[in-house]
Amino acid sequence: MNEFELIAQWTRSLPGNASVVVGPGDDCAVLDSGQPGRYLLLKTDAVVQGIHFSPDAEPERIGHKALGRCLSDIAAMAGRPIAALVTMALPNDFAPAFLQCIYSGMNRLAEQHGVAIVGGETTTNPERLLISVCLLGDVAAHKCILRSGAKSGDALFVTGELGGSLAGRHLEFEPRLAEARWLADQFPIHSMIDLSDGLAGDLRHVLQCSHVGAEVLARAIPISRAARLQAKAESSAKTPLLAALSDGEDFELLFTVAGRDAVPLLDAWKKQFPGLRLSCIGRITSTPGLKLRDKTGVHSLEAHGYVHFA
Amino acid sequence: MNEFELIAQWTRSLPGNASVVVGPGDDCAVLDSGQPGRYLLLKTDAVVQGIHFSPDAEPERIGHKALGRCLSDIAAMAGRPIAALVTMALPNDFAPAFLQCIYSGMNRLAEQHGVAIVGGETTTNPERLLISVCLLGDVAAHKCILRSGAKSGDALFVTGELGGSLAGRHLEFEPRLAEARWLADQFPIHSMIDLSDGLAGDLRHVLQCSHVGAEVLARAIPISRAARLQAKAESSAKTPLLAALSDGEDFELLFTVAGRDAVPLLDAWKKQFPGLRLSCIGRITSTPGLKLRDKTGVHSLEAHGYVHFA
Repeated sequence: MNEFELIAQWTRSLPGNASVVVGPGDDCAVLDSGQPGRYLLLKTDAVVQGIHFSPDAEPERIGHKALGRCLSDIAAMAGRPIAALVTMALPNDFAPAFLQCIYSGMNRLAEQHGVAIVGGETTTNPERLLISVCLLGDVAAHKCILRSGAKSGDALFVTGELGGSLAGRHLEFEPRLAEARWLADQFPIHSMIDLSDGLAGDLRHVLQCSHVGAEVLARAIPISRAARLQAKAESSAKTPLLAALSDGEDFELLFTVAGRDAVPLLDAWKKQFPGLRLSCIGRITSTPGLKLRDKTGVHSLEAHGYVHFA
Repeated sequence: MNEFELIAQWTRSLPGNASVVVGPGDDCAVLDSGQPGRYLLLKTDAVVQGIHFSPDAEPERIGHKALGRCLSDIAAMAGRPIAALVTMALPNDFAPAFLQCIYSGMNRLAEQHGVAIVGGETTTNPERLLISVCLLGDVAAHKCILRSGAKSGDALFVTGELGGSLAGRHLEFEPRLAEARWLADQFPIHSMIDLSDGLAGDLRHVLQCSHVGAEVLARAIPISRAARLQAKAESSAKTPLLAALSDGEDFELLFTVAGRDAVPLLDAWKKQFPGLRLSCIGRITSTPGLKLRDKTGVHSLEAHGYVHFA
């Protein structure tokens, strides 16, 4: 067991109370609001200089990413974001103007999605900038979509194009809030997650929470231009397919619906969101495990996207 | 204007929305819950190794402090804490057993106050441990106590004893949740804040928010044993009075009530909380500014507790 698995183990036995609908392990915590038919959603996330953004990243984009990551998690539950708090842990050498640009990027994204920024704290983290965001949202109880609802026979969908996010998209992605709410309004979506760890890793989270498996079609996976360009530019780079399976930080939606809803959903999506690709990339199976089907056959797929050609 | 004042300025023009009752500038953000007569409270705070705790601090106490600081802010609004999220930003050399003890300290405090810990994130902060906590609470709308309600003629009260917190109390203080809710239930409390920056600094926050002044009686300020011992041990140390005015991290409650309620409140408090000192330390005045009265006369008091003997 590695250190992060240990932590995951401890966080399974955390204190609860009657307000908890869904505790650790989904995109957001889900809480009883006391208001019939409505849940509260709570999410926190941090970005750290040198880990989630490079020291020369544009400050507006750092702010965008810090808030955008939390918004993407609210989207994954088909929720509505309400208000955010921001903790800025500032290095010794921070420049006020740089920080003001971070706020600009964050404020612009907040305004786009009607989110209030209601305060936060400023503290010191001498060696590097760290921004922690806490986001409150809500959702109609019957429209809240969890990771745990995937069913055998479901069609598996993903929005957008995957892979190569580090080339720039990870700092400027658009959280899929409107798309997720439209999906929950129009179709009985069984499960949903946002792609932060990479398609293979995040799909595995859905499968584990839902106690099912999946078969993904290699040729149906939407591969981004950035992933193709990277593969071409460097002979040592991942293949475009592996990049799309494993790169992470795509911040697209992965969701499942009953097989019979797949074609009507695709048709309705194209009318509603003509500018955003939606791909049916496979199906949920009753046999546990994640399989990848390509022209050579069916292969086991590791969490990190590596394919076992047994 | 220093850098932190600049930040304070930017955070005055953050995006809002219809859910915001009180935005940045009070102990917690106050949000309309959609439930008539109830507000939601949202707070975030971080503790950083080397800043808020020393590298050799006991891990259980680090966990206690990380959650306790947020609980103290919920107390300052007379609120009820509901659920917390915890972001652990781990240094490269962290020991899993150390981290487990941090969770133990946090979990024990959470259980004491009926708070659920509903998840969070684990990330990397290579040089030092940083723990960011986000806490959701609620409060009956008519019992929510702000910093801005102090009125000329109010009596000024403080719980516990002040100063010298760094000798140990800052890692093991008890957030005054039950006391604050009892106060709000029993008396029309006009304003309240928790003492994190030190009596002089935090009282100044109340005065600025309420557009009033205050006169504090030097001999009425409850000085902790730790502050007295420190003054005795080192000739270069602050006087006990200055420590009580300026040390910070007391996490006691400072509040004001109408002058006519002062004596009944003190009497009822002694019956309800016989183990916790409550001191009337002065009164709110219509003239702005913070004054300290001692046997030599009335002096102006700086935010950092320094007394001007003009």
